[in-house]
Amino acid sequence: MVTSEIELPDTWAYGAGVLHGGWLLETLAEAALEHTEHPHPLAVSAHYVAAPRVGTGTLDVEVLREGRSVSSLRTRLSQEGRPKVEALLTCGRLPDSSTTPFLLDTAPPVLPPREQCVRNTMPEGMPRNGITEQLDVLLDPATASWTTGSFGGSTEVRAWIRAVDGREPDPLQLLTVADALPPVSFDLGIPGWVPTIELTVLVRAVPAPGWLRVTHRARLVHGGWLDEECEVWDSEDHLVVQARQLAAYREPAQEQS
Amino acid sequence: MVTSEIELPDTWAYGAGVLHGGWLLETLAEAALEHTEHPHPLAVSAHYVAAPRVGTGTLDVEVLREGRSVSSLRTRLSQEGRPKVEALLTCGRLPDSSTTPFLLDTAPPVLPPREQCVRNTMPEGMPRNGITEQLDVLLDPATASWTTGSFGGSTEVRAWIRAVDGREPDPLQLLTVADALPPVSFDLGIPGWVPTIELTVLVRAVPAPGWLRVTHRARLVHGGWLDEECEVWDSEDHLVVQARQLAAYREPAQEQS
Repeated sequence: MVTSEIELPDTWAYGAGVLHGGWLLETLAEAALEHTEHPHPLAVSAHYVAAPRVGTGTLDVEVLREGRSVSSLRTRLSQEGRPKVEALLTCGRLPDSSTTPFLLDTAPPVLPPREQCVRNTMPEGMPRNGITEQLDVLLDPATASWTTGSFGGSTEVRAWIRAVDGREPDPLQLLTVADALPPVSFDLGIPGWVPTIELTVLVRAVPAPGWLRVTHRARLVHGGWLDEECEVWDSEDHLVVQARQLAAYREPAQEQS
Repeated sequence: MVTSEIELPDTWAYGAGVLHGGWLLETLAEAALEHTEHPHPLAVSAHYVAAPRVGTGTLDVEVLREGRSVSSLRTRLSQEGRPKVEALLTCGRLPDSSTTPFLLDTAPPVLPPREQCVRNTMPEGMPRNGITEQLDVLLDPATASWTTGSFGGSTEVRAWIRAVDGREPDPLQLLTVADALPPVSFDLGIPGWVPTIELTVLVRAVPAPGWLRVTHRARLVHGGWLDEECEVWDSEDHLVVQARQLAAYREPAQEQS
């Protein structure tokens, strides 16, 4: 196991220093990839043990096995001796998005042109949000009724996404993008913080350059837990990410009791 | 960290002693639950580092955090000093299936009556398979054309599932059930072993007694990797599992070259 110190800047943080789950996943995966000959993350599973904060952390990387076609690694981010994020990775070689899949049984989302979309920004009076500073997130207005003060009851959020700094999509960046949309719970009228408990991202191909299209969808919101299913499509209609997270929420009815 | 010895019987094994991925997940989760006050697995993510064999193994359980509403644990199954399966768990309390979800945006699969389904058995001349001995898996014939020697090209497999020994469904058993169907690749005409690389199971409710309905579906089969999305529904139409795995396959065209 290799242990190193890591600096966690506030670039991607929300408000008072809460770090972004997808960016944490990318950060851990980037560190892990330095310890394997395999170039790409294929499957990354993170459990968010406790919220890490902006500042210094300790990063452990353990190579579980370096195999011929894949490698398996374990990573841990700790602060003050306590685990904050624990992630497992399987790495290998992704197909290039120029190759044709044996089978694709789903279709890219239909989004309005970007000029008709709503840029994801933080409402006035709310703390800054690193995601909205680092990523251009252009929301399909049909799935973002909360931006106009109403609740659509939609279980899906759709958006165009591109890095503000012009970085083109790559497999590591996709880990951040897989958790970059506002929570679907906003449009359901569930207020408040929806912390990610667990997030698994399957990266399926090296993405083509250009804008990404991203969907988040909840299937079941029950007893304090909700799932968010995510697909990311590249500019050439390749499915490049399948991800799902389990998040916690507080039911509005519970708040009244 | 607590380390113990574990016996891995051939009850659930395929042929020459390859252990069943879902059963391994249940076995690790059962051991982990002994180290937390929280009663149920909410999210379990396993990376299959190398294939463990029937016999003796070493099991590590590390409690990452015991929180008020959830706990996080890490488990490892090793043999001969080498990691074979690494799994992360978040545990907590599941809603009872008698409670009503805040939102359910998907419907249970429509299956033919059980007497019209095809029992999953191993073809003559093939090795025994512990799954087909331990579980009654009654396949929807529309999704199991390979059982009659043809390939339907369906990306979905659907079945009724119940334990042969009369054990009623429970949250731990659902981890086994989430990986109990024949691979969807059979019906696509992709022959051979489809090893699971990574499997994440979200358990969403304590299941009601009775038969379970299970679906597996592939969305993208590309460059040697395929996903299998799994839903498990209980006898009272509650969605009790959402799972996804990444598996490896060899494309038929590659075998001819």
